[in-house]
Amino acid sequence: MSREAFVNGKYTDYIKSHVHIEDRGYQFADGVYEVFAILDSKIVDYEGHIKRLFRSLNELRIKSPIQKESYKFHINEIIKRNIINNGLVYLQVTRGVASRDFKFPKDSKSSIVIIGKNSPSNYYINNFNKGIKVKTTKDLRWKRVDIKSLNLLPPVLAKQQAADNDCEEAWLLDDDGYITEGSSSNAWIVKKKTVITRPISNSILNGITRSTLIKSLTKKGYKFTERRFNLNDIKDADEAFITSATQFVMPVIAVNNIKIGDGHVGEFAKIFKEIYFKYISLS
Amino acid sequence: MSREAFVNGKYTDYIKSHVHIEDRGYQFADGVYEVFAILDSKIVDYEGHIKRLFRSLNELRIKSPIQKESYKFHINEIIKRNIINNGLVYLQVTRGVASRDFKFPKDSKSSIVIIGKNSPSNYYINNFNKGIKVKTTKDLRWKRVDIKSLNLLPPVLAKQQAADNDCEEAWLLDDDGYITEGSSSNAWIVKKKTVITRPISNSILNGITRSTLIKSLTKKGYKFTERRFNLNDIKDADEAFITSATQFVMPVIAVNNIKIGDGHVGEFAKIFKEIYFKYISLS
Repeated sequence: MSREAFVNGKYTDYIKSHVHIEDRGYQFADGVYEVFAILDSKIVDYEGHIKRLFRSLNELRIKSPIQKESYKFHINEIIKRNIINNGLVYLQVTRGVASRDFKFPKDSKSSIVIIGKNSPSNYYINNFNKGIKVKTTKDLRWKRVDIKSLNLLPPVLAKQQAADNDCEEAWLLDDDGYITEGSSSNAWIVKKKTVITRPISNSILNGITRSTLIKSLTKKGYKFTERRFNLNDIKDADEAFITSATQFVMPVIAVNNIKIGDGHVGEFAKIFKEIYFKYISLS
Repeated sequence: MSREAFVNGKYTDYIKSHVHIEDRGYQFADGVYEVFAILDSKIVDYEGHIKRLFRSLNELRIKSPIQKESYKFHINEIIKRNIINNGLVYLQVTRGVASRDFKFPKDSKSSIVIIGKNSPSNYYINNFNKGIKVKTTKDLRWKRVDIKSLNLLPPVLAKQQAADNDCEEAWLLDDDGYITEGSSSNAWIVKKKTVITRPISNSILNGITRSTLIKSLTKKGYKFTERRFNLNDIKDADEAFITSATQFVMPVIAVNNIKIGDGHVGEFAKIFKEIYFKYISLS
């Protein structure tokens, strides 16, 4: 069976799946995306992701290329056709093909691409048990990262800088030295039994995993506060972790080579992973 | 004759010119570009543009997909095959195709696309004689716009905001209320016979047309200074104009509906257009 993608209304052989060279996603990053985690061939928190997708489209005035109700069908088709058990589905929508001009074209038809892949077996749990290391770097991104757009060169450079320093994630520092978020995740610390993450604004993405975790941990009675934190806070923290659609809850064992707590995966991270997975919706 | 593009080593029918859905230009804006003006089928300021292209590639650690010496050949092929007399050639290079992951892939092959088109007849001079109107808007871009990357969603939104306000260009305001540059051009004013434009930094693109004009006007003895300017400076200005590879020198007759000078195309703009065209290199 060959891998298949959904491209502008058709299911196509992945290898031969193409878009036009003047697709505005290719020339201008003029589009948005979502990543859906797949567990047991089911979509994690579908409603949250699709709601955010439509918010991003609205912010950029991009028309959805398909009916809102059709997204689930096509994501499930990609899951079936590619036999995805545990992995992810990636979906992007752009403003479509037009002769290159910065301003919006009058009558382009939005483009859509959906692909999926399985994760290596036990990928998540193996990573969880090791924990990850984080490097901090300047947040160079644009001022509307609340829109989940394709304007992703700055986080690409940040993630590569982390990799160059033998780290798995970059935490981005604003002009005041506070962490905004990770290059592709939200950032959290636990200090004096209080869970801390930065409040929602134009400076961070409103993570779906972040929202689900906040709901589940406050329901369970854990102390939680939304506030900015900086490197001093991190040095004093008992634990740190990240959340994202594909990394779920992932413990951070060091930031800039400074050990967090005792440098091992913390107890809160273990608990939050468990309660997170109990709280997610699968559809 | 059908229109032709150069795509990853082949000349292809423009209509059928495609890139893979997992090209990093499409998913991450992970690439760079240049626009070359074409006059009488010749390339304007080729050396300046190709030097900047390689600077951008180096900053992002993207390998050139072809030898430096080959760019001119392929640009000229696009000019010939598409019979471009007066128009432009657009060239983009991305990090190539790889399974989606923020960090740089280990062994992707960079992608290249070159396309060209003619401008409508007398397009430039007609626009010059009318002048353009400018709208100011907040500069939302990332902090390394000195790299001519595909991370272009913010200028797309700025240009569209200008269009929504019946303007042809947006001038971007930094946090201190100073103009950085236009959404796809450099910004200039003339005040008390002194020509003013913002100095080079990470906050603006080092425009090739900008450099050529500075050289030509200082050689001719015009007073010139590099400094920031804000809306108060603009209100007092005698003239304003923009420069870009395809708009050359283009007079600005109003900013936010406030007339510049007497609201007509100014004398300095007319002179600078003439000396600019005398000073460019054609190859």
